[in-house]
Amino acid sequence: MWTALSAKAAAQLDRELMSTGAFSIDQLMELAGLAVAKAIYKQYPPVAGNKNDVVFLIGPGNNGGDGLVAARHLKLWGGYEPILYYPKRVTSNQLYTNLLVQLQDLKISQIGESEIKTVLNLESTKLIVDALFGFSFKPPIRPPFNELIEFLSTNKSTLSPIVSVDIPSGWDVDNGPVGDHVIVPDTLVSLTAPKPCAKFLGEKPHYLGGRFINENIAEKYQIEDLIKLYKNDDLIVKL
Amino acid sequence: MWTALSAKAAAQLDRELMSTGAFSIDQLMELAGLAVAKAIYKQYPPVAGNKNDVVFLIGPGNNGGDGLVAARHLKLWGGYEPILYYPKRVTSNQLYTNLLVQLQDLKISQIGESEIKTVLNLESTKLIVDALFGFSFKPPIRPPFNELIEFLSTNKSTLSPIVSVDIPSGWDVDNGPVGDHVIVPDTLVSLTAPKPCAKFLGEKPHYLGGRFINENIAEKYQIEDLIKLYKNDDLIVKL
Repeated sequence: MWTALSAKAAAQLDRELMSTGAFSIDQLMELAGLAVAKAIYKQYPPVAGNKNDVVFLIGPGNNGGDGLVAARHLKLWGGYEPILYYPKRVTSNQLYTNLLVQLQDLKISQIGESEIKTVLNLESTKLIVDALFGFSFKPPIRPPFNELIEFLSTNKSTLSPIVSVDIPSGWDVDNGPVGDHVIVPDTLVSLTAPKPCAKFLGEKPHYLGGRFINENIAEKYQIEDLIKLYKNDDLIVKL
Repeated sequence: MWTALSAKAAAQLDRELMSTGAFSIDQLMELAGLAVAKAIYKQYPPVAGNKNDVVFLIGPGNNGGDGLVAARHLKLWGGYEPILYYPKRVTSNQLYTNLLVQLQDLKISQIGESEIKTVLNLESTKLIVDALFGFSFKPPIRPPFNELIEFLSTNKSTLSPIVSVDIPSGWDVDNGPVGDHVIVPDTLVSLTAPKPCAKFLGEKPHYLGGRFINENIAEKYQIEDLIKLYKNDDLIVKL
């Protein structure tokens, strides 16, 4: 069994990377999003000749930012056609704004609240990426996300597979699924380290990405076992 | 034959990526350096059990920055032990300063002018990475780099293989090797697109990396053929 990092420890590690660790958020988000795209491509290789749409559900914070980066890489690699649902933009954040411009330049289409449920139900939608909330999420889930998560929960059996980025959105980071309507991911991509809630994933595919932790930090946060799992020059590892 | 991008066009494309393209230098350098590390790992996979030192020759500009990023990834992947030679630091550049902190935190050692020739000659030095000058280089080559390049040129036959980042340092970007003492790379990693001087490489291994160009930009700079060469989710391609 792998080591997990509590919500509190994950937040502390993140702050440490960006202070004494001298990483910029641009760097870390680029590497995290790239790892998410790699895991998606590995677990669900696009079927040639098909229309392979991936709907990216993008939240207002860094989890959403990781999703924006992942969408860009997938689009550049070809095979998949990302579609963005990004209802709550933080326009004051220059990085998110820039990431969105990069996607617009790739002609990635965006859909709004009036279309999201219809598009999620389409035959052409082969995958759903849940990049709504990350390890700093605190309940309650506010509109329009509460309704979206209820929809994903209620219609689970007829929808395409869901890949959650770092945390299944709405889950308690340390305690797992809570409430009546919870996202049930088919694949989880943990970033830096799994969080405690990942143990409620069961036997579902679980990837680790975000290969930027040095030995000192790994030792301090007791995740040395994790950074040793990566093979060769791989950016992700299946746990 | 692949398309090349002149020094002028490469500079213009770079500016365009960071203005209307909305990319930050942090993002682009991270992806470029990662591609360099991937190409090195692919062309020269580390031999298990050996002491595999890689000496990174780091110049004062963005080519050096790409080298710093590549050194970090190689170190994190294991197998190779990067050693830095970085004699002309631009301390006013926060990104370069940060990249260096990230390497120091990985306990990557640095050597100075008094040691570089000795270290290049060591049996344990298995590879030399030339990240001195990129596509904005203009002659003459100033100290201490002139002496270093003369050393690399004169002692070529007894030194370990040289991997050049984007441009063999000191070469004219558009016209190739000039002068008495020129670096002769054993492998070239072109970033975004090969520059015209790459045609003087002959049959040596030549990789392309920096997979962040969208179709519009590729069309504008007439490098559509290049972005189609990448396979699947690969970050590099051998030309």
